[in-house]
Amino acid sequence: MSLIHGDPYTLEEDRWHKQTTNMRKTLSTDLYDFWEVDVTAPYRRLSYGFVVTGYDGSAVFFTEHGVFPLEEQFLTMANNYFRMPFFHEIDRFKAPQWVKETVWYQIFPERFANGDTSNDPEDVLAWGSKDSPGRQDFYGGDLQGVLDNLDYLSDLGVNGLYFCPIFKAHSNHKYDTIDYLEIDPAFGDKELFRELVTECHKRGIRIMLDAVFNHIGDTSPQWLDVVENGAASRFKDWFHIHSFPVHYTKTADFEVAKDMNFDTFAFTPHMPKLNTANKEVQEYILTIAKYWINEFDIDAWRLDVANEVDHHLWKKFAEACHELKDDFYILGEVWHSSQSWLQGDEFTAVMNYSFTESIINYFLEHTISLEKFVSNLNEQLTLYRKQTNQMMLNTIDTHDTPRLLTLADGNKDLMKQVLAFLYLQQGVPCLYYGDEIGMDGGMDPDCRKCMVWEPEKQDRNMFTFMKQLIAFRLENQFTLSEGTLAWLKIDPDNGILIFERSTPEECLIGIFNTGDQPIQEDLSGEVSFVHLANIQKNQLTIKPNGFVIAKK
Amino acid sequence: MSLIHGDPYTLEEDRWHKQTTNMRKTLSTDLYDFWEVDVTAPYRRLSYGFVVTGYDGSAVFFTEHGVFPLEEQFLTMANNYFRMPFFHEIDRFKAPQWVKETVWYQIFPERFANGDTSNDPEDVLAWGSKDSPGRQDFYGGDLQGVLDNLDYLSDLGVNGLYFCPIFKAHSNHKYDTIDYLEIDPAFGDKELFRELVTECHKRGIRIMLDAVFNHIGDTSPQWLDVVENGAASRFKDWFHIHSFPVHYTKTADFEVAKDMNFDTFAFTPHMPKLNTANKEVQEYILTIAKYWINEFDIDAWRLDVANEVDHHLWKKFAEACHELKDDFYILGEVWHSSQSWLQGDEFTAVMNYSFTESIINYFLEHTISLEKFVSNLNEQLTLYRKQTNQMMLNTIDTHDTPRLLTLADGNKDLMKQVLAFLYLQQGVPCLYYGDEIGMDGGMDPDCRKCMVWEPEKQDRNMFTFMKQLIAFRLENQFTLSEGTLAWLKIDPDNGILIFERSTPEECLIGIFNTGDQPIQEDLSGEVSFVHLANIQKNQLTIKPNGFVIAKK
Repeated sequence: MSLIHGDPYTLEEDRWHKQTTNMRKTLSTDLYDFWEVDVTAPYRRLSYGFVVTGYDGSAVFFTEHGVFPLEEQFLTMANNYFRMPFFHEIDRFKAPQWVKETVWYQIFPERFANGDTSNDPEDVLAWGSKDSPGRQDFYGGDLQGVLDNLDYLSDLGVNGLYFCPIFKAHSNHKYDTIDYLEIDPAFGDKELFRELVTECHKRGIRIMLDAVFNHIGDTSPQWLDVVENGAASRFKDWFHIHSFPVHYTKTADFEVAKDMNFDTFAFTPHMPKLNTANKEVQEYILTIAKYWINEFDIDAWRLDVANEVDHHLWKKFAEACHELKDDFYILGEVWHSSQSWLQGDEFTAVMNYSFTESIINYFLEHTISLEKFVSNLNEQLTLYRKQTNQMMLNTIDTHDTPRLLTLADGNKDLMKQVLAFLYLQQGVPCLYYGDEIGMDGGMDPDCRKCMVWEPEKQDRNMFTFMKQLIAFRLENQFTLSEGTLAWLKIDPDNGILIFERSTPEECLIGIFNTGDQPIQEDLSGEVSFVHLANIQKNQLTIKPNGFVIAKK
Repeated sequence: MSLIHGDPYTLEEDRWHKQTTNMRKTLSTDLYDFWEVDVTAPYRRLSYGFVVTGYDGSAVFFTEHGVFPLEEQFLTMANNYFRMPFFHEIDRFKAPQWVKETVWYQIFPERFANGDTSNDPEDVLAWGSKDSPGRQDFYGGDLQGVLDNLDYLSDLGVNGLYFCPIFKAHSNHKYDTIDYLEIDPAFGDKELFRELVTECHKRGIRIMLDAVFNHIGDTSPQWLDVVENGAASRFKDWFHIHSFPVHYTKTADFEVAKDMNFDTFAFTPHMPKLNTANKEVQEYILTIAKYWINEFDIDAWRLDVANEVDHHLWKKFAEACHELKDDFYILGEVWHSSQSWLQGDEFTAVMNYSFTESIINYFLEHTISLEKFVSNLNEQLTLYRKQTNQMMLNTIDTHDTPRLLTLADGNKDLMKQVLAFLYLQQGVPCLYYGDEIGMDGGMDPDCRKCMVWEPEKQDRNMFTFMKQLIAFRLENQFTLSEGTLAWLKIDPDNGILIFERSTPEECLIGIFNTGDQPIQEDLSGEVSFVHLANIQKNQLTIKPNGFVIAKK
């Protein structure tokens, strides 16, 4: 495969269609092979087409208008070529450098630490008093609890805190916002939050807040006004209401209804969907977006249910945030292919759920083959620009899913292997609070247990492992963020997976035993990280769930 | 091929993955078959995947994550499915109805008619005094000339006028704008233009102006200021200037230079490229965009070299135009695949050059096969939404290309066949001034000859044909705009091409003989339009270059 390229306006004069540039095959999926080449465009304009050579040696000319014989008459049809019309800086996707150098730590504030019992909710339960928290339980976690434990977090080595919602809301999870411009009183107040941001920034820790703009809580003043005043409410156009008065049939658990006459998040009547096409709603959301940057210097917004909000709003949102902070990070919650949000004018990245799911499917649930696993990872990487892949938030578990240790059926070696695999990939790792001390938990609310603070109840071995892995990631962030990925060995019979991440300067090799028998591999390079493996005379023996990371 | 679909939040509850909906194969290209199905989404959210059955009867599940076995465990993985997260009216592509009901007529103002000799340029030549106009000639065409000939245009039946630039500029073609807020004095003044728009609107004729925002003329005050003041110019950031003072080596024809230290259109030093990322330039362009709508009620902008201007500007541009006029039409000049501009927030359509080129390649230059021709047309249609295809501007020739009659080597029967073919396709036809009276002309400036007004020098037979064809198009616009396309016969050996355009209400059949021998076909339906064909007892005989359009 080779490329023909040149400036769109010089095809005839320069006769650039006479020259081809070889391409290299990089990643493959179950449907496609991908080929790459780096070229430059001196006038910032590029026309290009491909010469595709088949296994039988015959070649064709592949263009924007399909396939042609490789003949002069088609090569000189200037409009056949694909076109990058002009490279505009303003349209370019921008990847903030600091994000590449970050390991996030996700905090569910009601369950991380209770630093101030004076602001506890009325019906607060004793910390960790239930084996599994109930859906409506409160335990008193708050921002003071985070502030009190910054040493713990610094010791662990994370340098970004991603907070689940902290704004005033009714529930323990705070996704049913009442007021986006207030800290929930059970979490603290604005002065405390300001102090928290300042203290974090002093330690080089960035702050990401969770913003729920797809819907609002049904105890927000706006929705209550609609409930009370119906079509006469001044907020009636803030929502998607099909008829008045608004109504739905209450079910036992308050969670689901199908007969609502207004749009909601999923079928959740207490989360009425905001009409983000309404100018007042747009203004309201942009005001909130700017307020927490301007007043509190936050570094990132995580946008809940971001795919169900309109693109018009997100473009205005991104513009507003970046005007205030050039390197602001905008992370969308999108569970599926996200190209339309990642063109440079909406989000910086999305939560990389497809990546997560592939890891879970292969390592933890064994529902896909090793080849399909590699194909899936390659597919995710080829969906987006390299610059975008560097920004992706990679995690295995969150407040919405079972914890990794539970997915691993309590197998801590497997858990370590999965984490090591994740930390070696392009994209920014995110650790869910408590995983580092071996907490388990099923689907929410079970994954939202109170953080365990008694050292004797913490898995300190796991803590040490995570501390080392985070340090390893940050030390090698350049290679792990900028480097290419190549699969060196994919052996489904023995569950052996070997890959390298490399830049012209450095090469890291990961060797993983995902099978159920020990494997032996030659070692090339210097070992950086080992788990369940022995080395003798440049011969590695890796046990099941083991891995070796070497530096060439 | 069949579809599995449902609301993303009800997969488990409704078990909608148990049902499939059959899809229909529609168009095919040389690389792909396309399948379609219409479905509705009661909650405006949609998850979907495909069941693909091979020729051997085996079926697989095709998803956002590639191909899986058709098994319950994969069908119930909610995140496998493709997703339309939420249908937002504000993000929807909007196709103005009036555009579907339009046949455009393109006017190169300096050459259409001289209605007012008092405003002629100093060095004006006698109308039509040269067989082929020189690159720098002036003949005195103006807006009064257009106004004087509205009866002629109404008689022909066109109902949209697309003007090449009419703003103050140095050249005869006016693409080197001096002042976007003034009518070129050789064309008239604002009062005359206002009268022209009013008179056109009275007759149901819409007005489209050509806007050249990629670059400006080098005799504009902004560029002259840069030339004079260099880095001290207050306009220095209006352009892409690499160093000061600006310079280039003049060539004989003033048209091309390679050593400029500033960006230009192509390599044309007298067209310096505007820096549309600059806020002042943005404001300037938006002011112009709004001025001609607000003050003169124009209906459409045609944007020159639209692909080389940044997307940020076009989004603001579209928003500004649509705030003033909801059904405003924005037509981009883009010669290649245009998806990124046609998502609903930039252009309504582009000039359909790929479509044009395929017709030229097949009918006129014989460089592609009939199968490749059909493949190319299908590919264009499958690149965009149906709503976008309805908006495309379909033309064979413009002020930038040889005229159709010249491409047809003077064969007027072939010219008629090509036009009939074009008028039967989805998208809005555009006629280049003078084609309707049989004018010829090679590459510009030869295609910019003075319009022939002496009846005895006009091809009145061609005029009658075009009048009938335009009337036919407008009478059948619903079917031709909304209808599906199906290829009924593609016979490369005999050059027979038969297709239908149909809605549930009506079906039009086009039968074209593109070979060099007469062909015979059965007739089904009532004949609407005939050229070089005879009908006897439901048997058609169609000569080379002939066609029949029938209504079933």
